[in-house]
Amino acid sequence: MKVLVTDHPWPDTEIERSICAASGHELIAGPVEALPQAEIERLVAAHEPHAIMCCWATVSARAIELPPELRVVARLGVGLDNIAIPTATARGAWVTNVPDYCVEEVSDHVIAMLLAHWRGIVHFDREAKRARWEPASARLTRTRDMTVGIVGYGRIGAKTARKVTQGFGARVLATSPSLLATQRPGEEVAPGVFIATLADIQRDDDAIVLHLPLHAASQHLIDDAFLQGCRRKPLLVNVSRGGLVDNDALVRALDAGLLGGAALDVVEGEPAPPQAVIGRRDVVVTPHIAFASAASLEELRRRCAEDVVRVLGGERPLHPCNVPRAS
Amino acid sequence: MKVLVTDHPWPDTEIERSICAASGHELIAGPVEALPQAEIERLVAAHEPHAIMCCWATVSARAIELPPELRVVARLGVGLDNIAIPTATARGAWVTNVPDYCVEEVSDHVIAMLLAHWRGIVHFDREAKRARWEPASARLTRTRDMTVGIVGYGRIGAKTARKVTQGFGARVLATSPSLLATQRPGEEVAPGVFIATLADIQRDDDAIVLHLPLHAASQHLIDDAFLQGCRRKPLLVNVSRGGLVDNDALVRALDAGLLGGAALDVVEGEPAPPQAVIGRRDVVVTPHIAFASAASLEELRRRCAEDVVRVLGGERPLHPCNVPRAS
Repeated sequence: MKVLVTDHPWPDTEIERSICAASGHELIAGPVEALPQAEIERLVAAHEPHAIMCCWATVSARAIELPPELRVVARLGVGLDNIAIPTATARGAWVTNVPDYCVEEVSDHVIAMLLAHWRGIVHFDREAKRARWEPASARLTRTRDMTVGIVGYGRIGAKTARKVTQGFGARVLATSPSLLATQRPGEEVAPGVFIATLADIQRDDDAIVLHLPLHAASQHLIDDAFLQGCRRKPLLVNVSRGGLVDNDALVRALDAGLLGGAALDVVEGEPAPPQAVIGRRDVVVTPHIAFASAASLEELRRRCAEDVVRVLGGERPLHPCNVPRAS
Repeated sequence: MKVLVTDHPWPDTEIERSICAASGHELIAGPVEALPQAEIERLVAAHEPHAIMCCWATVSARAIELPPELRVVARLGVGLDNIAIPTATARGAWVTNVPDYCVEEVSDHVIAMLLAHWRGIVHFDREAKRARWEPASARLTRTRDMTVGIVGYGRIGAKTARKVTQGFGARVLATSPSLLATQRPGEEVAPGVFIATLADIQRDDDAIVLHLPLHAASQHLIDDAFLQGCRRKPLLVNVSRGGLVDNDALVRALDAGLLGGAALDVVEGEPAPPQAVIGRRDVVVTPHIAFASAASLEELRRRCAEDVVRVLGGERPLHPCNVPRAS
């Protein structure tokens, strides 16, 4: 059977190919970059795959309806906002992801961004490279004294919380719909991690870290109204999806001094986000790499391909994200 | 009595002045920057202080011999390599420091530098600001899989080890003369922290962190011979004293690919270290600020001044670094 990889932000597809080939399946590799939606649809129409593996490319309802015998759309990642899941479900195809391959990496990346901000690493390195050596200008922070707000408390949010509390002795306020559904604000959900409302986090936190999926209700969660409610000039950290943050509102909040800065691994407008956001000195940016390490990429690619092979062999996937209608 | 502050890498001396004034002592403030040794000697000759408080300025044997009634040389910091201690001892003056005010800050700074390197923060922010967004170029690292060598296991080294192990689950190899005097390589001195020789650290570590004082035996500890023995292209982190590292050997090792990079808060040649070192893209630099935070600076300045007032009032200091000869 045929497996189409729409996009792969790593240089080759040898891991995916060898796992598919071992079970007799043919792998067709698209480019490194995610093509526009219409190009993906053309690619799917040309190859009529039985399985689609995608990283960041949009796999639209049309792309899912086109192939006569599609069995699975497998996300090379965690979030599912680029896949038309209801269409897959309706036509009896599985949707899968790899929910836990990069928990260490993303939480490492958050701590790297928090500390880079609090210890002035990016700013002072830039200064030193211009031959400016001005220690008296430092306005730095003792991490232990900080309160870190975590919005979204799944696998990755909980791991970030653990690193903040166990590593540095700082305090975490965590919020999520599922936490608030079962427990009350103020309860200690793990040592040093307290359940909070979003309003608590706006009021009390020195950093606000976004660890939640993008969907209709979370789109532009960070807007003018949210930012105007921030009281302690927090650092805003986004390692989840660019669409969680309204770029224009972010720029207004930075200009107004409502935030201490921003650290963004994801930005609305990727892969060419506006320089009005990422060009600022009070914004530290990385190009959607929080998930990446040699170890995590190997794990992601292998486990995603293994689930594809499982489905093509007639088995249930290990990480199903839908319940396909019986075809 | 008169208290001379030779240099203060913070904007004013109000904390020091108010503590001295409360006990009736007069404070004379030198400039923010550390003047050359001869200028410090002139300053001392002009004011004939009973106490000298110094941050990074050299307080030479001559500076210590000049004032007719010198009682104490108080270091605004931890290291004592800029003070002629034997001369102070011989003339019956105390030397003091503040040994533990910045343990959190320096260890935070080390973790910030390790993670900035392993997560590509400085490099990718620079790329993004040039409108380059290339996630496929990322070669990043899972912190938990790393082994971190710590050379010097005092208060700060032990705290860095704790953050690496408790925060990230990574392994630490630690070495110091006092560890090796009482315990054998391989013993676990704290959870995840194993005693090692310097040769073990050269062979097995992904990062090598210097947490030791500068003295004759540690001058240029990191030289060509040491660097040629490194096996895993480690990141070299120096937050202690620039003189521990031979700059020319460091440049040769980076050019030869013996190191994965360097992260330096201290560099021989401060406050104008060579651009051949700090201008490199594989070297991340901060201008001797690892000790700094609002909290640590307040504590440093207050506790240093309190020890000066204690000595001027005829008491023993809280943090003596010598045993002055009876005068």
